[in-house]
Amino acid sequence: MHLPVLAAVDIGGTKVTASISNADGILAKVYQETVKTGDNTALPIQVDGMISAVCRLAGVKKAEVNALGVSTCSPFERRDGKLVLVSPNLCGGLTKDRHILPNRWMDIPLDAELRKHYPETVIGNDCITAVVAERLFGAGIGEDNLLYVTWSTGIGAGAYVDGHLLCGKNANALHLGHTFITTENHRQPACGCGDRGHLEAFAAGPAIARDFAEATGDRIAPVEVFRLYRQGNKTARGIIQRAARIFARGLVNATALLDTRLIVLGGSVIKDWDVLEPLVQEEFASAFPPLTKGVTITLSRLSQYLGDIAALSLVMPESWIPVWKAEKPWEKTPKAVKLET
Amino acid sequence: MHLPVLAAVDIGGTKVTASISNADGILAKVYQETVKTGDNTALPIQVDGMISAVCRLAGVKKAEVNALGVSTCSPFERRDGKLVLVSPNLCGGLTKDRHILPNRWMDIPLDAELRKHYPETVIGNDCITAVVAERLFGAGIGEDNLLYVTWSTGIGAGAYVDGHLLCGKNANALHLGHTFITTENHRQPACGCGDRGHLEAFAAGPAIARDFAEATGDRIAPVEVFRLYRQGNKTARGIIQRAARIFARGLVNATALLDTRLIVLGGSVIKDWDVLEPLVQEEFASAFPPLTKGVTITLSRLSQYLGDIAALSLVMPESWIPVWKAEKPWEKTPKAVKLET
Repeated sequence: MHLPVLAAVDIGGTKVTASISNADGILAKVYQETVKTGDNTALPIQVDGMISAVCRLAGVKKAEVNALGVSTCSPFERRDGKLVLVSPNLCGGLTKDRHILPNRWMDIPLDAELRKHYPETVIGNDCITAVVAERLFGAGIGEDNLLYVTWSTGIGAGAYVDGHLLCGKNANALHLGHTFITTENHRQPACGCGDRGHLEAFAAGPAIARDFAEATGDRIAPVEVFRLYRQGNKTARGIIQRAARIFARGLVNATALLDTRLIVLGGSVIKDWDVLEPLVQEEFASAFPPLTKGVTITLSRLSQYLGDIAALSLVMPESWIPVWKAEKPWEKTPKAVKLET
Repeated sequence: MHLPVLAAVDIGGTKVTASISNADGILAKVYQETVKTGDNTALPIQVDGMISAVCRLAGVKKAEVNALGVSTCSPFERRDGKLVLVSPNLCGGLTKDRHILPNRWMDIPLDAELRKHYPETVIGNDCITAVVAERLFGAGIGEDNLLYVTWSTGIGAGAYVDGHLLCGKNANALHLGHTFITTENHRQPACGCGDRGHLEAFAAGPAIARDFAEATGDRIAPVEVFRLYRQGNKTARGIIQRAARIFARGLVNATALLDTRLIVLGGSVIKDWDVLEPLVQEEFASAFPPLTKGVTITLSRLSQYLGDIAALSLVMPESWIPVWKAEKPWEKTPKAVKLET
């Protein structure tokens, strides 16, 4: 067995994945539905349990895990220097609607709890970790002015400017989804965070489904709205065209602020990139040329491995990087095993 | 005479200032209306002439100028690695309306032309240089996550994130005024850049004057609209409240993207900060708390010297900094002399 052994965990609003890697590649991977009941340490307890399970699968003793990288939905606050998760996807106490989540958590002490078991824990917002992974191994290799944007259930981003990874005071940089794209709140769609008029509330996957349901009464998944678009459905076309245009305005805004050269897109919505690309490119290209020309928009090259590599990147030794860049060992990752809750 | 001798130039849409400094302070300062006629080297020629004039006033030979710092309105492009100015405030060829400016310039080769006379020239966007100055000598001392925003004829910004000054591929980072704050262009106010729906088109000084003129037919300066606000004029109150609220949404957006801790404001509009502060603070505080709480909004401490110090900061030797920080020699700058065009 090649040492060191590293654990990587990706925490999303619906699913948590955990994997074990050594220099040769990702040895095993598991996933499980995100725990949202119990007290506010339930999630770190789940993560620890999943690492135990994936260690068994990988044939590694838990005590051999040298470091843990955690990529997670966010935002964070800091308490005594440690990151605390204050994500409205997970913490029911933070949402105005009491019925959305089955808990009243105000925060999750992720950093403090995980460090009890894994002293070498590094935690990052999932879009900041994604831009690290894309710059190391994906579509952003060698680019010092790089924006990664996920277009999914939410919209988030991560960026390098002048070769510097933007983190910010609480590691909350690039919450692009929670920027206002309206001058008013009144009559604007509500975001998951409770505010109105955010980019995410107009252009993320659920917004596409919501707009279709409001127009037709049919509650269908965003992917189904795209299917109807392809069939020529006018309502679906109008809704997707508008979401794409507004998403592109978000890309313009991030570019105007960061002066990045390359935009790498990830997330579930870009599975329909063939439909979206002309819409996004046209709107982006129509904006003030000195700030937008010479910018390339492309897709993630790490596809289903992005979350694993993103978390792993946080703790990966420098010595692994050239080998992984050349050999892409993540492509040989064994099939992920589902853990029942 | 203490060496080195440094020249600092601040280029705005209406006025250019030039000053000469040594370690003891700013020795002399001149200003002149910005030249907008002739060919596209007219502005660098003007800058060179102003430096000649201010050298004479300071009793310094032009050949003694060791370095030139230039703080300018922007944006920039790069040609052969050198910054070229493509500002719609100066280049008539970039504006859709042919009558706004008396030239058809597509760009100004500022960097290349000035380097012919001053090999040690450093050029920066005026808001990026302002954040450097505020962090060295002003309201941002010691803050690694710092946003400077100018609220004036335009809206622009500069920022440090994690102690790194954001520049970007063409040194155009933090063009906050040219971010969209609407989902559509249709029926939205036009920005100076030609786009519609930009933050600047809603909240900068000229937008306040325009909205007042549209509501009342009276074409008065923004400062007069504030005077009417103080007298209880309802139209003025409504317009200023809206501009302040929308400006605050711009501050929220920049904070959501950069996770900065301190916002320093400069520019002509904040002369009425006593009126604006409660409006801006209330709107800012109403946004998604995990991304906005713990953020302080304050004013520039460099007031009328900000432009001079900003340009000078680009070329100031490290050894001057502790002395200037302690002694604030800029406060003893001789009165600026107006040069006729």
